Amino acid sequence: MQIDLNSDLGESLGAWRMGDDAAMLDIVSSANVACGFHAGDSVGILHTLRGARARGVVVGAHVAYRDLVGFGRRNMDVESAELTADVIYQIGALQGLAHAAGCAVRYVKPHGALYNTIAQDRRQADAVIEALLAVDPALVLVALAGSPLIGWARDAGLRVVAEAFADRAYTPSGALVSRRERGAVLHDAPMIAERMLRLVSDGVVEAIDGSMVRIGADSICVHGDSPGAVAIAREVRTHLEAAGVNIMSFVGAAPRVGLETLHP
Amino acid sequence: MQIDLNSDLGESLGAWRMGDDAAMLDIVSSANVACGFHAGDSVGILHTLRGARARGVVVGAHVAYRDLVGFGRRNMDVESAELTADVIYQIGALQGLAHAAGCAVRYVKPHGALYNTIAQDRRQADAVIEALLAVDPALVLVALAGSPLIGWARDAGLRVVAEAFADRAYTPSGALVSRRERGAVLHDAPMIAERMLRLVSDGVVEAIDGSMVRIGADSICVHGDSPGAVAIAREVRTHLEAAGVNIMSFVGAAPRVGLETLHP
Amino acid sequence: MQIDLNSDLGESLGAWRMGDDAAMLDIVSSANVACGFHAGDSVGILHTLRGARARGVVVGAHVAYRDLVGFGRRNMDVESAELTADVIYQIGALQGLAHAAGCAVRYVKPHGALYNTIAQDRRQADAVIEALLAVDPALVLVALAGSPLIGWARDAGLRVVAEAFADRAYTPSGALVSRRERGAVLHDAPMIAERMLRLVSDGVVEAIDGSMVRIGADSICVHGDSPGAVAIAREVRTHLEAAGVNIMSFVGAAPRVGLETLHP
Amino acid sequence: MQIDLNSDLGESLGAWRMGDDAAMLDIVSSANVACGFHAGDSVGILHTLRGARARGVVVGAHVAYRDLVGFGRRNMDVESAELTADVIYQIGALQGLAHAAGCAVRYVKPHGALYNTIAQDRRQADAVIEALLAVDPALVLVALAGSPLIGWARDAGLRVVAEAFADRAYTPSGALVSRRERGAVLHDAPMIAERMLRLVSDGVVEAIDGSMVRIGADSICVHGDSPGAVAIAREVRTHLEAAGVNIMSFVGAAPRVGLETLHP
Repeated sequence: MQIDLNSDLGESLGAWRMGDDAAMLDIVSSANVACGFHAGDSVGILHTLRGARARGVVVGAHVAYRDLVGFGRRNMDVESAELTADVIYQIGALQGLAHAAGCAVRYVKPHGALYNTIAQDRRQADAVIEALLAVDPALVLVALAGSPLIGWARDAGLRVVAEAFADRAYTPSGALVSRRERGAVLHDAPMIAERMLRLVSDGVVEAIDGSMVRIGADSICVHGDSPGAVAIAREVRTHLEAAGVNIMSFVGAAPRVGLETLHP
Repeated sequence: MQIDLNSDLGESLGAWRMGDDAAMLDIVSSANVACGFHAGDSVGILHTLRGARARGVVVGAHVAYRDLVGFGRRNMDVESAELTADVIYQIGALQGLAHAAGCAVRYVKPHGALYNTIAQDRRQADAVIEALLAVDPALVLVALAGSPLIGWARDAGLRVVAEAFADRAYTPSGALVSRRERGAVLHDAPMIAERMLRLVSDGVVEAIDGSMVRIGADSICVHGDSPGAVAIAREVRTHLEAAGVNIMSFVGAAPRVGLETLHP
Repeated sequence: MQIDLNSDLGESLGAWRMGDDAAMLDIVSSANVACGFHAGDSVGILHTLRGARARGVVVGAHVAYRDLVGFGRRNMDVESAELTADVIYQIGALQGLAHAAGCAVRYVKPHGALYNTIAQDRRQADAVIEALLAVDPALVLVALAGSPLIGWARDAGLRVVAEAFADRAYTPSGALVSRRERGAVLHDAPMIAERMLRLVSDGVVEAIDGSMVRIGADSICVHGDSPGAVAIAREVRTHLEAAGVNIMSFVGAAPRVGLETLHP
Repeated sequence: MQIDLNSDLGESLGAWRMGDDAAMLDIVSSANVACGFHAGDSVGILHTLRGARARGVVVGAHVAYRDLVGFGRRNMDVESAELTADVIYQIGALQGLAHAAGCAVRYVKPHGALYNTIAQDRRQADAVIEALLAVDPALVLVALAGSPLIGWARDAGLRVVAEAFADRAYTPSGALVSRRERGAVLHDAPMIAERMLRLVSDGVVEAIDGSMVRIGADSICVHGDSPGAVAIAREVRTHLEAAGVNIMSFVGAAPRVGLETLHP
């Protein structure tokens, strides 16, 4: 049994700290690194990339709408050509920093409102898919498990990885329970860890109504934006490993690209 | 006889237009393309890159301080690690867009206040040099003719190209006359064209006091931010070619990288 | 007969120019001045405000979504509390600059996507209405003629002015023809001027199907973002005045607030 | 005996938190509230202003260079007219939000690099002074104790308040020890509290070399950006009050402007 654990990292901005990247890089196999549009300044991103490289964590581009104040969480009606170019710009910027850190960008996971929008919206989904194809068709797209995006991207020739969320409740049909509803976010670390083991071993999670729902996921998203979240993530990893699950990126081991060239 | 003509392009931003990139791409051999920090949005940059590729114009990264409102013209006391990372970020972003446009970034020409600062300031110069080495040591640095930066960058292992300015007056010691002084900017197209021919053929320009000063330049910067500027640039090219000067980038012909992959 | 002519001004940004504010300030009775969220830098806004004051043009706040690259034209799903605070912030900033220029902010006209959204969307409309009430209940709201916003704002206690667009075609029901449709934007200056005279004198315009539609408007928006647009605006004013229409702001004459205190 | 305690507040940005404004508003008599250029989004600023009003804390505008990523800590060579307009813009924006919160902006304390620059640089100092005079000559300027700025601003007709820093070491001549030097920042809460009592009662502090230096200060800056900083601030207030010092703003009690008009 094998699964990928991913987390959103590199989300500090200048004097503002967010999350504990060092702690999370010891837990996850994949780092979704901010690209400067919703979060992340160049030197902070570079620091996170070096941390990922040092620990063999695979790096992905966490691309977003251009909206620092809204942290990329606000829906924006961006034209297709703009969205494609914005995604290419962000991937390229991260590729440059990753190269300087001695690693490589292997996948793309859209962030926040963009993630949710393209899970369902064909026009914006196509714009993002076009960006990956244009910059590097070998980039893997991480998409919401069960979403139409998965089929659209595969039809376009991309490799797609389906993602589940460790700390979120699911509806009986396999969708995420909206954050506006009670019980949408889970907080009990042992229960979450056991759910994720069940997901990996049997491909099912218990939905919010008690029924079992099938979720096909190759990667599990864990959060690191609070001490409690880090503890949950650690519990998930420990519990999975104790049950014999191999925590490894969906692209295999993280490649090292030459020597790291910058002074630490 | 051979010389490179370069110009600052891709400097529109959203609804705001700047310059006539299409006209200038027919004149120059090298395009310094904005990277989003002082100017340029992703889709506009991509459009300029496609134009450069279609005409075989070589592309360079016009990196800058992060200052849209000030257009990168205000000195900023940026720490070395931040500056290095900011330059890598910008080069990477442009590389991504260039790849999507079917071309490649071959050189870096810092913009505005950053250009002037690193011409003389060792700390910031070293930060920029480190960025080029980290992202791609084959990148050529375009630097002010006669400036200490040229030696610093060569000592660090970079190829450096010295640049002269077509529409600027020079002091007897070969420095640019400050824009604050009378006569700093030249407007007479035939006179400018003849000056540049003299520069290419004899390696000298007439300084503001009438003396002749030696300027070693491998590239001439022409501007395109007004109809008058475009006309001057065209006159320079026409006059040089009529005298048998070959207008060609300092890196030779522009490479094409695969097919252009995005829809036009 | 009397009508207000308004135009969007102060929309340059740093090195980027937009429109010909000086020309338009000689034509309009009301200046919708950008507040820095979709366009406008502080010193450029101040310059436009001084021009308005010098010519007795009434000043309004042209508030927008925070989106420079998209020029405030992209729909954004901003939460109500954020939107209210963002609108207050922008009005306050303009009030400060207006005070320094010796004039006052008398009305608010939302810009672009925000303008269109609140014409129909009750939640965002309420957020904007709340902002005006909080900062100054005497501020007039300029709203799309025929839109539900007019009633909502009046019910909340605001004075509302309905606005027509000189260069836009109307549907038989009095809505604007979408820009995506043929004939949505008019270009024939004498025809536009005659339409606006009919609007002022009879309260009707000819719709795109040839029928006459009633439009109750207290203000006409004219554009100044191209030489052609300025010429149309001038023709509208000249034609209306020749027919005896008094061009005057809906708030009467522009107040002067003390002396202008800054050096020119 | 009486003294003002001030602190930098409202410095969160969207999803990023900074400091504990609620705790600090229970300690200080004056709140330097961010205006959006170095920190602060509209809704967060408004929240802090409401907290200040609820506790009777006087509000000042913490104006800065336009530099979110650098948190306003990087020197920028801004032209005088731009700087004046930027400061007016920020004060105006805060006035608008303060009005909505039922309070008023009574003073201006420049932030970070701008604070340090205008303490010594006449050109930028004059630009800031001009902004205060233009927007409201009754605004008090908070300036570094002992700096030339104090005289310049008084000569221009402004009321100026001199400021000392609770957690900073002083040179024998009364300047702040540079942060780059050992011992520049103090961490021992009881010692800091005792130093501040000595400052208030005798007008002196012990310099880094053990000598006593005279510091004329009407306000003491305390920080709140870490739990340790909040504890020091609380200790300073408690210790001063226990010794009979009255903690009160230099403008007296905070005015309430009408009712707070927005929903909480």
